[in-house]
Amino acid sequence: MPCSLERCPYTFCCYFDQQMSSMLILGSTGSIGVQALQVAQRLNLKIEGLSAGRNIPLLNAQIKTHQPSQVAILDPHDRSLLQVPQGVEVFVGPQGICEMIACSQASLVLNAIVGFGGLAPTLSALQHHKKLALANKESLVVAGWLLDTKQILPIDSEHFGLWALLQKHPLEHVQMLYLTASGGALRDVPLADIPYQSLEKVLQHPNWQMGAPITINSANMVNKLFEVLEAHWLFGLTNIDACIERTSSVHALICFKDHSVHAQLSSPNMQLPIAHALMPSLACQTPLIEPLDLLSLPPLSFEPIDTARYPLWALKDTLLVRPKLGVVLNASNEATLQAFRAKKIAFGQMANLMFQALEHFERDTQSLSTLEDILALDKEVRGFCTKLC
Amino acid sequence: MPCSLERCPYTFCCYFDQQMSSMLILGSTGSIGVQALQVAQRLNLKIEGLSAGRNIPLLNAQIKTHQPSQVAILDPHDRSLLQVPQGVEVFVGPQGICEMIACSQASLVLNAIVGFGGLAPTLSALQHHKKLALANKESLVVAGWLLDTKQILPIDSEHFGLWALLQKHPLEHVQMLYLTASGGALRDVPLADIPYQSLEKVLQHPNWQMGAPITINSANMVNKLFEVLEAHWLFGLTNIDACIERTSSVHALICFKDHSVHAQLSSPNMQLPIAHALMPSLACQTPLIEPLDLLSLPPLSFEPIDTARYPLWALKDTLLVRPKLGVVLNASNEATLQAFRAKKIAFGQMANLMFQALEHFERDTQSLSTLEDILALDKEVRGFCTKLC
Repeated sequence: MPCSLERCPYTFCCYFDQQMSSMLILGSTGSIGVQALQVAQRLNLKIEGLSAGRNIPLLNAQIKTHQPSQVAILDPHDRSLLQVPQGVEVFVGPQGICEMIACSQASLVLNAIVGFGGLAPTLSALQHHKKLALANKESLVVAGWLLDTKQILPIDSEHFGLWALLQKHPLEHVQMLYLTASGGALRDVPLADIPYQSLEKVLQHPNWQMGAPITINSANMVNKLFEVLEAHWLFGLTNIDACIERTSSVHALICFKDHSVHAQLSSPNMQLPIAHALMPSLACQTPLIEPLDLLSLPPLSFEPIDTARYPLWALKDTLLVRPKLGVVLNASNEATLQAFRAKKIAFGQMANLMFQALEHFERDTQSLSTLEDILALDKEVRGFCTKLC
Repeated sequence: MPCSLERCPYTFCCYFDQQMSSMLILGSTGSIGVQALQVAQRLNLKIEGLSAGRNIPLLNAQIKTHQPSQVAILDPHDRSLLQVPQGVEVFVGPQGICEMIACSQASLVLNAIVGFGGLAPTLSALQHHKKLALANKESLVVAGWLLDTKQILPIDSEHFGLWALLQKHPLEHVQMLYLTASGGALRDVPLADIPYQSLEKVLQHPNWQMGAPITINSANMVNKLFEVLEAHWLFGLTNIDACIERTSSVHALICFKDHSVHAQLSSPNMQLPIAHALMPSLACQTPLIEPLDLLSLPPLSFEPIDTARYPLWALKDTLLVRPKLGVVLNASNEATLQAFRAKKIAFGQMANLMFQALEHFERDTQSLSTLEDILALDKEVRGFCTKLC
C-alpha cells in the first residue's frame, strides 16, 4: 500500500507488510492493548514482547496466551507477581520499556501507553528504526515536531479515516479535514449543570468503550483538540476542523477544493485501525468488525461544536497556529484530570485551570525545541496546576 | 490522474489533460449540454464542434458564443434556420454527427444525446480514438460489452462518485458498490395512487433539474437500473446495489471487505462530474459548484428501494446476471415513455409493458453479440411495445 503523499504516515506499509516478523505491544493491558492482541490473534501475528503497568494478573494471562520472549513492567515491586516461563527476558521500570525496544528484533512497536509516559518509548522506537503503530496521542501532541511521521501509523479512528480517504488525493486539493466527535457523556446535559457533573456520569460514554482518561477527555473536547494536533503533525495541514456526529458512524470527512466531500464510516470499533496498522494487506480483506448496516443507521447529522458546552474548543485555531502549546495543554490536562478523578476538583474546574495554564505558559512554548525543553516545561506546568488544585 | 485500476475509466486522464486541445459537445442544447458549455467557458476550454436536435434558436446562440468550427443538426429542414459564420462546416442528419466526429481534430467528445440515438456517436468516437465523456446512459445500457470503457469518462454523479472514492483502492477489496437514488417525484405519493399519476406530477423531481425522460425514469427507478448496468460495465463488478437518500447529497458509497464504508457527497450539480470529465487537473482545484454546508444539511438516511413502490427495481439482480437484457429494458422504456408523454398510457402501464417485453424477449438476448444484433432487437422490442400501447 505505497502512498504518493509525501507526508502520509502509511508510505511504507507495503515494505512493512513484506518484512514484518513480529511486534511489541506496549500498554498491553489497556483497552487498545487488549484489542490489539485480539487482532494479532485473529490475523495470526507473532508477539515478541509485551509491556504493562499495574494489571499484572491480566499481563500474566496474556503471557500465557501469546508467549512473548520479552516482557516489561513498570513497578519493581510487581516482579514477584509476574509469571514468566524460563528464558523470557524481563525489563523493569520506565526505562525498562526503552531497553526492551532497543534489544528487540521486532519490526513494529504498538504504543498504547496512556499519557505523557508514552513519549519516551515513542522516541526510542523511532530511534531504533521500528515502524510505530501509535495509539499514544500524547507523543504527537507534545512533541510532533520531533517525530518522523513517515515511520508512524496512527491508531485512531479519525486519523485512520482521513488516511483511508486521502489515498492518492494530493493534499493541495484539500480544502478542509474534518474529524468527528460524539459529543461525549455530557452532550445532552443542561449547560448550567455541566461544571458539577460527577466522575461516574462523565465516564458514561454514549458510543465507545474506552479507558477512563480518554472518556473524560471526550466529555470536555480535550480529546478532539489532541486529535486536531495529531492530524496537523501527521498530514502537515492547518485547515482542520471538527463537528459532532452523534452515532460515531462517520469518523472523518474531507472537503475538497472542488466542493466535493468524502466521508469514512464504520461501526465504532478500534479493531479496524489497529488491524490496518498491524498488517494492512490482511486487514483490507478481513472483516474483523461488525458490518455497518446503512439501511438501519439512525439519521446522520453534523453539528457544530458549541463553545458554551465545550469551552476548551475555543482553543482549536490558536493550537493550529501555535501547535507547541500542546505541551501545556497536555500537562495541564493530565494534572487536572488526576485531581478530578481523585475528586479534588469539580469537572468544570478542569477547563478553567487549563485556560490559566495556557495563558501563564504561552510565551514559554515559543522557545521549545528539544526533548529536554519539553520535559522541563511539562514538569513546570504540572507543578503550577497541582498548586492550583 | 493515472489510476491503478485496470478497468478504471479514468486511466488516461493525465494523458488527456496534457494533450486535450478541443472538444465536441453532442446534444449541446439539452440539460447536460448547456451545463457542459458553462463549464467549458469557466475553465476556458475550446469548443471545436456542437450538435443539437430541435432547439435551433439555442444552438444559434451557442454558436455565437463558442464559435465552433463544426456544427451538426438532426433535421435537414432546420438547415435554413441555422446561423453560422462563413467557414463553419455543417453536417446534417443522424449520420452527420458521426461524420463530424470522423472529420474532427478534437481529442474529446462529450456525448449528451438522450436515448438510443446516442449509441452510434459513442461507437464513432471510440472508433476514432477520441476520449469519450459519456452522459448518454443508453450507450452502456444497450452495448456495454462492445465499448472500450478505458476510453470512457462517465458523466453521472453516481459513477463519478464511485470513481472518486475508488482511486487506488483495488476492486478486490470492494464488498458492495452503492448508488443512491432520490426516490423521484412519486416517493411520497400513496402507493395506490402511483399508477395514475399525471405527466405533470411525474416531472416534478424533488432535487434535480433534468430533462423530461430522465425525470420520468427517476420516478419509476428505470434510471437506477440503467445506472446499475453502467456501473457493471464500467467497473466490471456485479456486487452493485442502490438505496434511497432523499437529499441527493450522497451520490455513491463503497462498502469494503474490512467493513469500512466510504461515501461521496456534494450539492446536486452536474457541473462537478462534467468538469472532471473535461479537464480533471483544473476541476480538482476549481470550485464550480456550491459548497456543501455539512452543518446545515438535513439528516442523512439510507432507505431500501421498496419494490411495492418501484416494481421495476425487482429486476436489478436479474439484470446483473444477464446484462444484455439492457437492450430490451431500454427499448421498451423508450417506447412506453413516448406513449406516456403522448398521454396514450397511464404511468403504471409503463412498468407492466416493460415486464411483458422483458419476458417476451428474454431468450433473444442470449445470442446478442454485434451492433447489428442490437439494432434488430431494439426495433423488434419497440414494435412489440408500440402495438401493446
